[in-house]
Amino acid sequence: MPRKKDEALHAARQQQILDAARTCFIANGFHQTSMRQILDEAGISSGGAYNYFSSKEDIVRALVEVERADIDLLLGQLSGAKAPLPAIAQLVFDSIAHYAREDAVLAIEIYAESCRNPAIDEVIRANDDRMREALRAAVTRGRKSGAITAQHSAGELTEWVLALIDGYIGRLAANPGLAPKKAARMAKQSVTELLGSGK
Amino acid sequence: MPRKKDEALHAARQQQILDAARTCFIANGFHQTSMRQILDEAGISSGGAYNYFSSKEDIVRALVEVERADIDLLLGQLSGAKAPLPAIAQLVFDSIAHYAREDAVLAIEIYAESCRNPAIDEVIRANDDRMREALRAAVTRGRKSGAITAQHSAGELTEWVLALIDGYIGRLAANPGLAPKKAARMAKQSVTELLGSGK
Repeated sequence: MPRKKDEALHAARQQQILDAARTCFIANGFHQTSMRQILDEAGISSGGAYNYFSSKEDIVRALVEVERADIDLLLGQLSGAKAPLPAIAQLVFDSIAHYAREDAVLAIEIYAESCRNPAIDEVIRANDDRMREALRAAVTRGRKSGAITAQHSAGELTEWVLALIDGYIGRLAANPGLAPKKAARMAKQSVTELLGSGK
Repeated sequence: MPRKKDEALHAARQQQILDAARTCFIANGFHQTSMRQILDEAGISSGGAYNYFSSKEDIVRALVEVERADIDLLLGQLSGAKAPLPAIAQLVFDSIAHYAREDAVLAIEIYAESCRNPAIDEVIRANDDRMREALRAAVTRGRKSGAITAQHSAGELTEWVLALIDGYIGRLAANPGLAPKKAARMAKQSVTELLGSGK
């Protein structure tokens, strides 16, 4: 049984590698980054590296897992909310506002890779499915309570909300002049308007 | 002066290479595709290849140029439209409806590369800027005519429309169950609602 101190060291090393990988992927992309470069950036000797991650895919999966923890937090707030419409709007705000431009670039890089790489697609898709299910449940609750009045189906509204989040993350990468909080505020307001409209 | 027949042959060969590159990039991504693979896929000997394109970047730039021609067509319709709001909504529909899932995957791949590659960023950004300017002019016209009543600024509405287009293209790549025409219809309706709302 490993000692507490060893466990803490192991976790710290893992985090060092994840931070280094993030830096390398943003600067050079997934395929132009080697394991060796990530370990150099992290200041870890290549001998011990495979105790932490067995491949670049493993590192990307771990990065997506970190995002999963953030998503869990947001979805917990959504499912516990008494008023679903403001909660959905807040989730949209929170999903966009914390993205710096380089986070957006990394998200698109990982997304592009996931379209061809089943090991990465699996974890991305799992996050996506959980967002979709939770949003759809909230939209359905909002309809029942009368707060969500838009005449589109719950499935359409859910996909629309996801498109808006993805789209603004794309815009943050495309347009360095767009401030994340401003983008998040606009997305939040438009969700409130569209879902609360009677059209 | 080259003969007509030579010019036609040259254009046909260029198109063969672009189609082959498209197939390779979708299957394997930009960086895992070599010039050699593209030429093999196109059935062209590597000796003559550099008469057509000098690098993979050149090919990607040519692919984005093709998109530019499509965008020009849409923007021509937008600037000529008497009623700006339905014209903006139609542009949103047309920008999404023609995307098959693999086009969406290719768009994201090129987009990810553009974030790090100035030669590609330049052409992507040029398309983006022209879309933004034309949309913004249409929003401003719509405001003057009283058709666009949303209280957000023209700049905010324009970026919102661009985010919606980018977002639905992302969703088409992420969710194979989402039909492009259905996505385009939902985006079109939401543009009409948001821009025409008085909130």
